[in-house]
Amino acid sequence: MMFDINNIRPLLEEDTSIVGDNDKIHFDNVKTLKEADEHSLVWCKLEGESLLAQIEATKAKIIVCGNKTEIPDKYQKQKCFIISESPKLQFSKIVNELFNKIINPVIHKTAVIDAEAVIGEGTSIGANTVIGKCKIGSGCIINCNCHIDDNTEIGDRVVIGSSTVIGGTGFGYSRDIDGKLVLFPHVGGVVIKDDVEIGSNTSIDRGSLGNTIISSGVKIDNLVHVAHNVFIGKNSLIIANTVLGGSAIIGENTWIAPSVCLKNGVTIGDNVTVGMGAIVTKNIPDGETWVGNPAMPLEQFMKQRKNG
Amino acid sequence: MMFDINNIRPLLEEDTSIVGDNDKIHFDNVKTLKEADEHSLVWCKLEGESLLAQIEATKAKIIVCGNKTEIPDKYQKQKCFIISESPKLQFSKIVNELFNKIINPVIHKTAVIDAEAVIGEGTSIGANTVIGKCKIGSGCIINCNCHIDDNTEIGDRVVIGSSTVIGGTGFGYSRDIDGKLVLFPHVGGVVIKDDVEIGSNTSIDRGSLGNTIISSGVKIDNLVHVAHNVFIGKNSLIIANTVLGGSAIIGENTWIAPSVCLKNGVTIGDNVTVGMGAIVTKNIPDGETWVGNPAMPLEQFMKQRKNG
Amino acid sequence: MMFDINNIRPLLEEDTSIVGDNDKIHFDNVKTLKEADEHSLVWCKLEGESLLAQIEATKAKIIVCGNKTEIPDKYQKQKCFIISESPKLQFSKIVNELFNKIINPVIHKTAVIDAEAVIGEGTSIGANTVIGKCKIGSGCIINCNCHIDDNTEIGDRVVIGSSTVIGGTGFGYSRDIDGKLVLFPHVGGVVIKDDVEIGSNTSIDRGSLGNTIISSGVKIDNLVHVAHNVFIGKNSLIIANTVLGGSAIIGENTWIAPSVCLKNGVTIGDNVTVGMGAIVTKNIPDGETWVGNPAMPLEQFMKQRKNG
Repeated sequence: MMFDINNIRPLLEEDTSIVGDNDKIHFDNVKTLKEADEHSLVWCKLEGESLLAQIEATKAKIIVCGNKTEIPDKYQKQKCFIISESPKLQFSKIVNELFNKIINPVIHKTAVIDAEAVIGEGTSIGANTVIGKCKIGSGCIINCNCHIDDNTEIGDRVVIGSSTVIGGTGFGYSRDIDGKLVLFPHVGGVVIKDDVEIGSNTSIDRGSLGNTIISSGVKIDNLVHVAHNVFIGKNSLIIANTVLGGSAIIGENTWIAPSVCLKNGVTIGDNVTVGMGAIVTKNIPDGETWVGNPAMPLEQFMKQRKNG
Repeated sequence: MMFDINNIRPLLEEDTSIVGDNDKIHFDNVKTLKEADEHSLVWCKLEGESLLAQIEATKAKIIVCGNKTEIPDKYQKQKCFIISESPKLQFSKIVNELFNKIINPVIHKTAVIDAEAVIGEGTSIGANTVIGKCKIGSGCIINCNCHIDDNTEIGDRVVIGSSTVIGGTGFGYSRDIDGKLVLFPHVGGVVIKDDVEIGSNTSIDRGSLGNTIISSGVKIDNLVHVAHNVFIGKNSLIIANTVLGGSAIIGENTWIAPSVCLKNGVTIGDNVTVGMGAIVTKNIPDGETWVGNPAMPLEQFMKQRKNG
Repeated sequence: MMFDINNIRPLLEEDTSIVGDNDKIHFDNVKTLKEADEHSLVWCKLEGESLLAQIEATKAKIIVCGNKTEIPDKYQKQKCFIISESPKLQFSKIVNELFNKIINPVIHKTAVIDAEAVIGEGTSIGANTVIGKCKIGSGCIINCNCHIDDNTEIGDRVVIGSSTVIGGTGFGYSRDIDGKLVLFPHVGGVVIKDDVEIGSNTSIDRGSLGNTIISSGVKIDNLVHVAHNVFIGKNSLIIANTVLGGSAIIGENTWIAPSVCLKNGVTIGDNVTVGMGAIVTKNIPDGETWVGNPAMPLEQFMKQRKNG
C-alpha cells in the first residue's frame, strides 16, 4: 500500500513539524538509511554534519530526524523531513500505525485450552499453546508453544512470545533431617496486568502463597527468569537473560539491563537503572544506578576501578 | 474441603508441639499472614516481638511458627500454634500433604511418544510433549511442550517443567585445517535418577561418549544449561540461569546459586556453596563457599574488597 | 554394524598414520576409554606416560591418539593405533562418518507449516514445530516445538535444537511524554546462512528495520539470546547463556564463552576470544582476548588482579 504525507499528518506529535518538498513524496516501506529505496520511510538519530551526510547518501525521500540541524535548501527541494524533538518515538508511532499487520484474532486449532479458561474478545492464541484454568483479557497475542498454567490472570492487550512458560512451580526447598529436599508449597498464581509484553523462552513462576505480580506496561525480554512472588511495578523494563529472585520487589519505570541477577527478597526502587551483568545483593533506593559483581552505586564502582 | 487440628496431628515432626486453643479451629486454605482469612493456615519465620506483632495482625487462627518465643495467654486463647524447630519445613509438609492436588495421571492425547518408549505406571505427560526412544519411570510428571530425546533414562517420581529439552546434541567442535568447525560425536545419553525435579525452559544435553548424569534428589531450576557429560551428585540444587560446562562434576548436597557459570571440566565438591553470578574456573573443595568473577573463596573475596 | 580398519582408511587426514596390529581388529561402537569394551573405538587426548597408562587400562583395541609418544611394541602387538596430529578432530571425522544415524527426512505430521513457506529437499521438521512464511533450504534438521516466524530465511544443512524461537519481535522501546513505552517497529527478518547449528531454547529476534544475520558455519549453543539486527561473521561460536545485544557485530572465527553479555551496538573483531561471564561494554579489536566485569584485555585484567 502506498502512503503519502497526508497519512502522516494525523500521527504527528505536538513538537513535530514538516519541512521540505512533500507533495509528491510517496512511500510504501520502512528501511534503514542504507538499504532504503526511493519509496522508503526512514529515520536518522544523528545531527549536524553526520545527519547531512546521511541525507545526501540515502535514496529515501522522506526522513524523520531531530530538530537541532538546519536542513539546507537543496535537500528541502528534493526530500521531505519530519522534524521532531524525539525522532525515534515519532518514527515508531508513524510506523506502528501505518505498517502494523492487522492480525485477525485467531485461536489456532492446535492450541490446547482448558474448558474452564476464560478468554477475552480479539485475543489470538498461537499453535500448540497450552492454556490452563486461566483468565485472559481481550486483544492479547499469545504466541506458539507457550504454557500458561492454572491460576494465571492476564489483562488486556498483553503480548507473549513463543515457548514462554507462565505459572510453573516456583523453586524453594527446605532440607529435612535426612538431607532430603522438601518443596515449599506453591499454591499461588500469576497476575499480569494490561499492556504487558513478554518475550520468548521466558519463565514466570507462580507465587508460593501469594501471587507473582507484573504491573501494567511492564516489558520483559527473552530468556528472563521471574521467580515466585516477584512484584514488578508499572512500566519497568527487564532485559534478556535476567534473574529476578523470589519475592524481589521492583519499582516503577525502572530499567534492569541484560544478564542481571537480583537476590531473593531485595527491593529495587522507582526509576532505578541496574547495569549489565550486575549481581544485586542489596536493596537499591529510588533513582540510583548500580553496576558490578557485587553491584554497588555507579560512583563507588568508578572510584574503585580508578584506585584498582 | 475443611480441615481441623486432627488432620494435622499425624503430620507433625518429632520436634513439633501444639499450643493454644485448637478444638474449634478450622481451615480450608493456605495464605500469607497478610492475606489470610479466618480459615487460613499460615506460617511465620519471625521470632520475638516481630512474631507477636504478626500474630496480632493476621486474621489467621492457625499459625505454624518457631520455638524461640513464648506465646502469651491472650493469643493462646484465640488461636492455635504449631510450634516447631523448623517451622518452614513443618508447614511445607502439612500443606504438601493436605493441599496438593491429586492429579490423575494422564498422557495427553497431543503428546507425541515414540513406539519404543517405555513409560512407567502413574506417569503424566503434558500436551504437545515429544518423547523419543526413552525409558521413563513411574509417578513422574512431565509438563507441556517438552522434548525428551532418544537415549534418555528417567527414574521414578521425576518432575519436569514445560518447554524443557533433555537429550539434545552437546556443543563441542574442533576446527579443521580450513577453519571449518567439525562437531565432536555425541552418541551418549542422559540418565536422570529418582526424585529429581527440573524447571521450565531448561536444556540438558546428552553425553558425547558417556552419559550426562543427574543423581537422585537433585533439583534444577528454570533456564539452566547442563552441558554434555555433566555429573550432579545427590540432593544438590542448581538455581536458575546457571551454566554447567561440559564434563563438570558436582558433588552431593551442593548449592549452586542463580547465574553461576562453571567452566568445562571443573570439579565441585560436596556441601559446597557457589554464590550468585560466580564465574568458576577452578575446582572447589568440599564444604567451601566461593563467589565472584572469577570465583574465589569467600574469605579471600572479602579481604580483596576491603583492600580494593 | 561391525567395522574394521578398511572402513577407517578412506577417512584419514593427511597427517594420520596407522601403527600396530590392525588386521583382526573389529569395532561396532564408540565409548570412553573407561567404558570401552573390546569392540569399541576410542580416543585419548593424553601423551607420554599418561597415554600409555590409558592404553594399558582400556579394553578398547583401536585407539585414536596424538603423535608425540612412541607406542611400545607390546601394545602394537595387541592393539591398533590411529596416530594423528589432531586426534580429536580425526576421531570426530571417523565417528561422524561411520556412526551418524541416517535420518530419513520427515516433516512430522504435527508440524504446523504456513501455506506460503518454502522448504528444500531432504529437510526434517520435528513434531509440533511451527513454521511461518519462511524460506528454508535443503538438508536441514529443525527439531521439535520450535517456532520459526515469518520473514526468516534459512540456508542449507542448518540444524536447530528444540524449543528454539527464531524471528520473534525484538525489544526496543521509547518512553513517550506520559512515560508509556512505545515499541520501535520490527519489520525486518532473520537470515541464517548454510551450515549454521543452533541449540535448544535459544531466541533469535528479527531485525527492526534491517535483518538479523547469522553467517555460514556459525555455531550457537543452548539458551542464547540474539537480539535484533545482530550480525555474526563466519564460523564464530557463541556458547550457552550468552546475550548478544541489539545491533552488535561479531567478526569471523571468534569465540564467545558461556554467560557473556555484549552491550547493544558493540563491534567484536575476527579471531577474538571473550571469556566466561565477560560483560562487554566496548569494541574489541581483532585477535584479542577479553575477560571480566566489565570486560578488559586479559593482560590488563591479570595485572589488576595482581595489584588488587
